[in-house]
Formats: sequence, structure tokens, C-alpha cells
Amino acid sequence: MLETFRAYLAEKTAYIERHLVPALEREGVPDTLYDSMRYSLTAGGKRLRPMLVLAVLEALNKPIERGIPYACALEMIHTYSLIHDDLPAMDDDDLRRGKLTNHKVFGEAAAILAGDALLTRAFSLIAESYLADPEVKPETALKLIAELGKRAGAAGMVGGQMADIEGEGKRLDLQQLEYIHRHKTGDLLIAALRGGGYLAEADGKQMEALTRYGVSIGLAFQIRDDILNVEGDAALLGKAVGSDAEREKATYPALLGLEESKRRLRELLDEAKLALAEAGLDRSVLPQLADYVGNRKK
Amino acid sequence: MLETFRAYLAEKTAYIERHLVPALEREGVPDTLYDSMRYSLTAGGKRLRPMLVLAVLEALNKPIERGIPYACALEMIHTYSLIHDDLPAMDDDDLRRGKLTNHKVFGEAAAILAGDALLTRAFSLIAESYLADPEVKPETALKLIAELGKRAGAAGMVGGQMADIEGEGKRLDLQQLEYIHRHKTGDLLIAALRGGGYLAEADGKQMEALTRYGVSIGLAFQIRDDILNVEGDAALLGKAVGSDAEREKATYPALLGLEESKRRLRELLDEAKLALAEAGLDRSVLPQLADYVGNRKK
Repeated sequence: MLETFRAYLAEKTAYIERHLVPALEREGVPDTLYDSMRYSLTAGGKRLRPMLVLAVLEALNKPIERGIPYACALEMIHTYSLIHDDLPAMDDDDLRRGKLTNHKVFGEAAAILAGDALLTRAFSLIAESYLADPEVKPETALKLIAELGKRAGAAGMVGGQMADIEGEGKRLDLQQLEYIHRHKTGDLLIAALRGGGYLAEADGKQMEALTRYGVSIGLAFQIRDDILNVEGDAALLGKAVGSDAEREKATYPALLGLEESKRRLRELLDEAKLALAEAGLDRSVLPQLADYVGNRKK
Repeated sequence: MLETFRAYLAEKTAYIERHLVPALEREGVPDTLYDSMRYSLTAGGKRLRPMLVLAVLEALNKPIERGIPYACALEMIHTYSLIHDDLPAMDDDDLRRGKLTNHKVFGEAAAILAGDALLTRAFSLIAESYLADPEVKPETALKLIAELGKRAGAAGMVGGQMADIEGEGKRLDLQQLEYIHRHKTGDLLIAALRGGGYLAEADGKQMEALTRYGVSIGLAFQIRDDILNVEGDAALLGKAVGSDAEREKATYPALLGLEESKRRLRELLDEAKLALAEAGLDRSVLPQLADYVGNRKK
């Protein structure tokens, strides 16, 4: 990774994280609930979805501050989905990024409610913030909410999680595996990119390119995840390696083999960059973000 | 109850219920998830929150169709809150309105996800529907989303549920009990009324009256619930009577006595109607809806 890109990621991560906690409500919120929401929201992570919103605004020469409420809303939704996914009734995980999962610290009831409250806050944050921002048209804010709701809901991220749970212990084919990843991981990345596009007043061609880019990096993200589970560094990952194979989980390496998975990953990164180039969006940080997603070590 | 009012309730309930299922997404939604969402959304209930939206529009001589997306969104949020409240980690209920609770039919994972998806759909439904409706300004739709998010979230309904769970087995005073009910039950009723007010272009005085009315009927609703648990008809209620006392739950009758609770209930209904009268909103179905909330048998 280039030193300048590494510095870019660090700077943007810090910028995003400064805005996350202040975007929560505090007054009138029971302490345990607030602490539980804050715990998971500040538990680290790549902040990839907010990063993509800001990168689209930069690529289209618009002020990045405009993207902050939407970027924080995306991170709240991503965070709620992790809290609920970790619950005993779902994936039953005790650790995430080397820290105790939300329900291990606050109990299951508080974890369910913290997730519900983060999801709810995502939408009211967008509505409140852009109502108060004369630079963003109310129609644009409504389009953000429609886009985010569609990508995060029953036909998007939640649907992907449902399919993932139903697929456990079954032999999935590549099409079923792609449905899961497209929705469970891809849709929220697409929402970040398209939302950034709305905020930056992207034209139709640019929106189409951002969507294609999002579809490709979403799948690339997941294939990289699967590859890391085969040959990654457990210490860097903060979790065990080889667990997918042990649980006979459907993965790209299991279905296609490791070499073919790597080839497919490179192909997706090329397609992502081609989509950008065709819409003149390649002179931005977006191509490097694609490589970052596809080549990350954790 | 007057025969004409009974007919009004039946007609409006049918009208609302016709719109609920079509307001869900279907395409791209896994079958189990869709069935789980639909099961709870069509499981009956008073449809009180949607009813209040339509009643405000009627009271201000506006077409009620305009309220349908917001009314359905409120019912989706009410429904998701029941699904999550019934989970083993929360109230652990097997039956609701005489039917099996969602997780007893579909399992815990599907119940958590159906709740998440209903909550998400509520917001995208408002955004999508009003983007397509030239009668409703985009600013108004954003105000609905801000209002609903605030009342349904950490400082509203979810906060009330958290306080309720934390209060279990403790001796609560009247102030703590009112905090719980104000938020757990009252806030979503207030969101219905204020949202109806935004859609009907209510002026400041009318909005204030609708809020006062909502605060009063919200508490009245809960006191009536507590009274029914003491002296209601178990067959009509679809649940056991006397269970609150048995579990030593903090209730109005337990804290104030039965007679004083009934007096307080009458006082709240009077205050609700006074608020309406002072803003000229009393020549509508709203006063009768207050009595309905306060005197219902189930």
C-alpha cells in the first residue's frame, strides 16, 4: 500500500470517527442503552462504507462535509447488523475484532435494543441533518433514505443474512452463494456509493458506474474474506483461520478452488476500475479503494 | 360504544389492513423472511396508530389517502416492536392475541430479522411513497421521518422498553413508571398524531393540541391496560388476568389503588378532549377515539 494512501485512510478514518458518537442522541436515553450503542459504534473497523461516501464526493469535487450524516447513518446500520448477527440466535459469536461482542457485555436484551435504536437513528439522522442543511435538497435526502432502506432491508442486507442462515449446513451452488454475498455485504456498499452519487449530484452515467463499481467490490470483498480464512494471518485478522473449511461452509475457495478464486477476485477489481474509467471517475481515490478491499490483510 | 362509531372503526380497520401487505417489498425477499413479516403484520390488533393518522387528516378536512404510507409505516414499527419484545431474551411470550408469537412459528433468527426488516421498510416506505406523491412536499416527508425516528428510537419507544426491562423486579415509583409508559407506549401514539398533523398542514396551535392529546391518551392507554389486568375479562383479552399482581409488576393499580387509577384515567381523557376543544379539533372522531382508548374491554 502506498504511504500516501495509508495516510489518506488514517486521516479519513479519524475524521469519520470524530462524527460518529456526536451523531447519537443522548438526552432522554437510558444509560445502559446509550452505553451499548456507543460500545459497538466505537469498536473500530475499516469504516469502509463512510469512506466510500466521502470518496465519491471528492471524485465529483464536492465538499465532503455534506456526506457526514449519510456516512454516519451507514456506519450505524452496519454496526447494528453486526450486533444482531452476533446474537446467540444468529451466529452466536463471543468476540469481534478481538473485543467481546455487544451481548456478552450488555446482555441479549440490551443488544437487541441497541441494534434497533442504531437502525432507527440512522434514518432520523439523515432526515434531521439534511432538513437543516440548505446545500442538500429535501428530495435528495428522501432519495438517500429510499436507497438505504431498500439496500439494508428485506430485499437487501437483511435478506442476505436470512439466506445465509437458511443456507447453513447445506450444499450451496455458486449462484446461491453470490445471492448471499451480493445482499449481505454488497448492498450496503452499493448504498454508500449511490448515496454519495446523489449527494454529489452525479449524472445517470456516473450513477451507473458507481453501481457497477459497488457490485464488483462487494463481491471482491467477500472473496477476499474467504481467501483470508484459508491463508490469512490469524493474529492480524483477530480470528481463527481455517474455520470455514472446518465448518464445511460454502465459500469461493471451497466451490472454485483457491487459484480460481484469486483469478475471479482480480477480474472483479479490474471490472470495478473499468467502470470508473468509463465514467471519468478514475482520477480519484476510488480505484485504490478497490485494491484495498481486494488485497487487504485483515 | 355508539353503533356509528363501531362501524367507523370496522371500516377504517378494513381500509388500513387492505394497504398493509401491499406496502411490503416482495421481489428479492427470501420466502421465510417475507412470511415472517407478513404473519405478524396481519395478526390483528386495534390498528390504533394508523387510525389516529387518518382521524387527524379527517379532522383537518384533508384526504385520508395521503396518510396511508405513514400509517402503514407506524403499524410496521409497532409490529416489529412486538416481535422483538416477545423474544426469549426480552419478555419471552409464546402467545400474542391468542396466536403463537413470531419466534414460536419461524424461530428466533427469523423473528429478529423480520423485526429489523419491518423497521427498515417503515422508513423506505415513507421516502418512496411521498417522493412519488406531488401532494406532499419532500420537506414534509422528511419531517415525518425525523418525528417517527425520534419517537421510535433510543429516546422514545426503544428507550421505554429498555427502562421497562431494567425495572423488572424493582420497586418503581410513579415517576419511573410514567417514564416507561410515556415512551414505550405514548411516543408512537404521539408520532401518529403529530405526523398526521404535518400531513394535514396543521398550524402551531393545532400541533400543540395534538401533542397534548397524544400524551394524555398514551398514559390513559396504559392505565386502562393495568386496570384490565385486574378486573378485565380473560376471554376477551386473550390473556390471563391478575398476572401483573402475581409477578409483582409495577402498575398504576399497585401504586395508586384501583379507584385512584380510574380517577386518574378519567382525568386524562378529560384533558385529552380539552386539548382538542381549545384548538377547535373536537368536532371530529378524535374525542371518541380517546374514550375508546380509555374504556376498551380488550
